[in-house]
Amino acid sequence: MMKTYNYSNLNKQDIQTLVQRNVDPANEIRTLVEDVIAHVKQHGDRALFDYAHQFDKVELSKLYLDKAELQEIASAVTADQKAALKVAYDNIYKFHQSQVKAEDKVETMPGVTCWRELRPIEKVGLYIPGGTAVLPSTFLMLGIPAQIAGCKKIVVCSPPQKNGKVNAFIAEVALMLGVDRVYLAGGAQAVAAMAYGTETISKVDKIFGPGNQFVTKAKTIIQSTTTTAIDMPAGPSEVLVIADGTAKPAFVAADLLAQAEHGIDSQSVLVCTDENIAQQTLIEVEKQLQVLPRAEIAKQALDNSYIVVTDTLAEAMDFSNQYAPEHLILATESWKDITDSIINAGSVFLGNLTPESAGDYASGTNHTLPTSSYARAYSGVSVDSFVKKITFQHLTEEGIKNIGPSVEILADLEGLHAHRNAVSVRVSPPTP
Amino acid sequence: MMKTYNYSNLNKQDIQTLVQRNVDPANEIRTLVEDVIAHVKQHGDRALFDYAHQFDKVELSKLYLDKAELQEIASAVTADQKAALKVAYDNIYKFHQSQVKAEDKVETMPGVTCWRELRPIEKVGLYIPGGTAVLPSTFLMLGIPAQIAGCKKIVVCSPPQKNGKVNAFIAEVALMLGVDRVYLAGGAQAVAAMAYGTETISKVDKIFGPGNQFVTKAKTIIQSTTTTAIDMPAGPSEVLVIADGTAKPAFVAADLLAQAEHGIDSQSVLVCTDENIAQQTLIEVEKQLQVLPRAEIAKQALDNSYIVVTDTLAEAMDFSNQYAPEHLILATESWKDITDSIINAGSVFLGNLTPESAGDYASGTNHTLPTSSYARAYSGVSVDSFVKKITFQHLTEEGIKNIGPSVEILADLEGLHAHRNAVSVRVSPPTP
Repeated sequence: MMKTYNYSNLNKQDIQTLVQRNVDPANEIRTLVEDVIAHVKQHGDRALFDYAHQFDKVELSKLYLDKAELQEIASAVTADQKAALKVAYDNIYKFHQSQVKAEDKVETMPGVTCWRELRPIEKVGLYIPGGTAVLPSTFLMLGIPAQIAGCKKIVVCSPPQKNGKVNAFIAEVALMLGVDRVYLAGGAQAVAAMAYGTETISKVDKIFGPGNQFVTKAKTIIQSTTTTAIDMPAGPSEVLVIADGTAKPAFVAADLLAQAEHGIDSQSVLVCTDENIAQQTLIEVEKQLQVLPRAEIAKQALDNSYIVVTDTLAEAMDFSNQYAPEHLILATESWKDITDSIINAGSVFLGNLTPESAGDYASGTNHTLPTSSYARAYSGVSVDSFVKKITFQHLTEEGIKNIGPSVEILADLEGLHAHRNAVSVRVSPPTP
Repeated sequence: MMKTYNYSNLNKQDIQTLVQRNVDPANEIRTLVEDVIAHVKQHGDRALFDYAHQFDKVELSKLYLDKAELQEIASAVTADQKAALKVAYDNIYKFHQSQVKAEDKVETMPGVTCWRELRPIEKVGLYIPGGTAVLPSTFLMLGIPAQIAGCKKIVVCSPPQKNGKVNAFIAEVALMLGVDRVYLAGGAQAVAAMAYGTETISKVDKIFGPGNQFVTKAKTIIQSTTTTAIDMPAGPSEVLVIADGTAKPAFVAADLLAQAEHGIDSQSVLVCTDENIAQQTLIEVEKQLQVLPRAEIAKQALDNSYIVVTDTLAEAMDFSNQYAPEHLILATESWKDITDSIINAGSVFLGNLTPESAGDYASGTNHTLPTSSYARAYSGVSVDSFVKKITFQHLTEEGIKNIGPSVEILADLEGLHAHRNAVSVRVSPPTP
């Protein structure tokens, strides 16, 4: 169960140790993953059929499901489930659509105009985990911004189930997104297929999506050895709850458990200004655990979790900023007073009535977020992740006259004569 | 000298070969760089003093220059040079300032509100190359957006010259940016110092800046083994010029040479719809080469460069999009007709009067750009590179009632009972 620390007893080094996550738990599998990547690069489709047999225990006759097959599979989805997926789709779409904004042209000097234009990344690959944790919500979170960005080709890979198909909800989301084909490939082999291309699967420019340690390792290797980009590094999921005397222990406990049920390596951290609330939360955790189907997983995750008791919300926020949580819940009625002091976090849930689950599924924000303290430098997935911002500049005759002399001096002082000359020929072209 | 190809004679595979750049020319130095990183991680400052001796041939008494020292060094900068740096500073500042925009709150459902807020990355590291190519312009291009973003700590590393100092222009730019200290560290050891921290140099959250193959390799390793992020992968610089019958051969030649003088691994590509213009450009290149101080470098780079002759501007753009150039110059009076068809490029220079040099130094756009076809998925450096966009969400009582049932259904279908319960406890809390 969760250990409790008193913030005033922690020195800098203690805090450093508490906020530390294992950045690369999967390093020991590097060689294995490199082998898989090399094999897919060399043998293409053949390797994917072999790995489906070896890892997914299924003999595939082809490497994808087409629209008719997806429709048949999706027919198992009930009307209620469809309606819930539609609510999520609409909210996610609405929020992500708001992220697209045309930018202004800026005249930096008379005759010198600069601006940026968005262009979709042409070909993107989405990895949707399958196996024990089938996540149609992840498919929505990646597919919708790709759709809004206008990506021309959206390649979707998901591991085949033992029946050689994907789960009905994955099929349903594919149809909602207008994705007519889902490739039956999982693990490192799916990442390799999207990075190098095979006879059936197109090479893409950027790969998105969470996955197990093999998928994560493969994405890291691909990022540093090919020109294919990845969305972000990924580690186990985590939540940090800041709570004060106005928090509701039953709500906080439910949030800590929702994180803990993800996997045994998940982490739930409570930073609390009120010892009584902390104690009641622990009691609530025990109570709610009783009826939880994934209680065994949650218990192990909680062994890896902890509580920090602070004197003030400011101290709590200070700890949180050092932790840089993927999910930050402000379980306090005073949330408005402290949001400005948030420096590092992936996504923030404000007040007692905003559970992380809302953002995991349907509030509209993206649930693909930086873990493992990557929130110090990375943002979660958004439409930005699916576009490039290309800079443009245009000089008029007046513009080159205005800016030319400065460019000539700067090129000179860097010793780049041809750079200078590219201006000089335009300002005073030699007579022909 | 540049080879010429006719687009209509090229098949898919030929084009693939032409647009291919060496993604990882520096892989053979991996072990060496890993050793340097391990050494700095273990020995801190001591390692930096040793490497300054070994690689920079200088015995340092301390690892940085302070404000007074920078002021003394910068006194060598002339008034003209200062004025030119100021023009660049002002234009870059103006354009980058325009990139900062507050975002709207979006009510995705009644009572469910989502938005994003910008937060600066707290600690950033800027690597400013020294040695043969001293680039104060790069310092401006990285320092200004860091300043606008509001980064709290800006760590600047630049290799020491043999006199144990930095060049006067680097010192001047530091003072312009309000950076009071420049660390005397170069190469992989500087990257390692900023990623792990030493007694003198702070660990940072993200490292920016170009450099030689050691710096680039170190950044790649750091990115995949620590939580410190990097701006982007980097390769040799490149330009692609699209020209038609309205282009000026002397201007095009000057642009090709400006790129070629960077280094022997630079590439200059001309894609031209007019064979006559292409021929005249080659003649102009030979002519301008005569007076170029860095002619030897430029010649070797041009041996590695080529011309493609197409029938139409549409074909030229098609080739360019496959190449995905760092710099794209549209040397045509019809540039307005073809900008919409640009899919992949880092920065674009429009019309006959807009040389790349303008953007390299002073138009206002950033010159830290994706090379080696990374422009398919990456954007150049901007204020965005120095901030995180954190998502926020808030649910009212009405909000959780509206969204709750959908979240419960979605959690159920993913088999995550505790996720469901985090909503249920809030919608109908058990009586205490």
